[in-house]
Amino acid sequence: MNLEPAVKYSHTLLQPIIGHGNTVIDATVGNGNDTLFLANLVGPTGHVLGFDIQQQALDNTATQLTLTGLTRQVQLIHDGHEHLEQYLEPQQPISAALFNLGYLPGSNKTIITHADTTLKALNTCLKHLRRGGIVALVVYYGHPGGEQEKEAVLAYAKGMDQHQYQVLHYGFINQIHQPPFLLAIQKR
Amino acid sequence: MNLEPAVKYSHTLLQPIIGHGNTVIDATVGNGNDTLFLANLVGPTGHVLGFDIQQQALDNTATQLTLTGLTRQVQLIHDGHEHLEQYLEPQQPISAALFNLGYLPGSNKTIITHADTTLKALNTCLKHLRRGGIVALVVYYGHPGGEQEKEAVLAYAKGMDQHQYQVLHYGFINQIHQPPFLLAIQKR
Repeated sequence: MNLEPAVKYSHTLLQPIIGHGNTVIDATVGNGNDTLFLANLVGPTGHVLGFDIQQQALDNTATQLTLTGLTRQVQLIHDGHEHLEQYLEPQQPISAALFNLGYLPGSNKTIITHADTTLKALNTCLKHLRRGGIVALVVYYGHPGGEQEKEAVLAYAKGMDQHQYQVLHYGFINQIHQPPFLLAIQKR
Repeated sequence: MNLEPAVKYSHTLLQPIIGHGNTVIDATVGNGNDTLFLANLVGPTGHVLGFDIQQQALDNTATQLTLTGLTRQVQLIHDGHEHLEQYLEPQQPISAALFNLGYLPGSNKTIITHADTTLKALNTCLKHLRRGGIVALVVYYGHPGGEQEKEAVLAYAKGMDQHQYQVLHYGFINQIHQPPFLLAIQKR
């Protein structure tokens, strides 16, 4: 059994805390892998709100959802995740949110996530997060602009109130090609 | 389901890679928790080599092993783990090793592990480690001397050849009381 890459481990952590009927956020739909994973966990009575600013990413994911019979529980939203608040009821609890920070693999490398909008979306997720819920951020930072976002997100995470949240860092530290690492924030 | 503390996660990682009949190392017996955990996994046909420089730690652990019927597979060694090589056959493979760096809780806080002897023992473990095997180091560093050892071990771990090893960091980054973090080194 090999140590799990950060992306895989984000799923390992989220799987046991998401149940049928839950509402969860896919803050960066991208290739749709996370969207399908979340859609399976919430089941037909649950809700996945999936955000992406690239229409192509949403189109590809919509096709995947149709092929796998998971369209019913997923709302694909062509908007930046910083506007997340507009799509949730004020008191709507969520059990999880998942972010992939960086650019969409195989796409335009200049379209990237940015610290300010990422942190705004993160804060909205935390506001709605139920106790025991997890916000997972898979942080890619090897691209231009990635290092700044990484540092901003890490600084924010390290400063979070330990009485309210546990912030886990999971990552490989001897790899020269800057693989992504995971930050998992659990509400107490 | 809550995020696992580093100590608990070291067991989660080791559990699936240790089988009956294996040889494993408890590099810092201390209160014996890890020794009993490893003894259960290797079973009566396996071998746990447990090191501690404090006789009291070994005596307490011997009692625990007797009470749980696990004495047969454990060799408790009153010696520093830097002499580990003397207790292994030259070609003896091991599937895992576990270190708790710092001082023995409830004991003399001036008796601590040190970077030079820790790294010597780590190197011996890596030499004997089978493919897929893991050396886990739970790093306590809140005590005097702890910071230096932490920095030395982290620097060593970050420099390990990525073609031979994966080095995982698992730890909570928003806690003010410096809880231990885990380094897990898996041989490819």
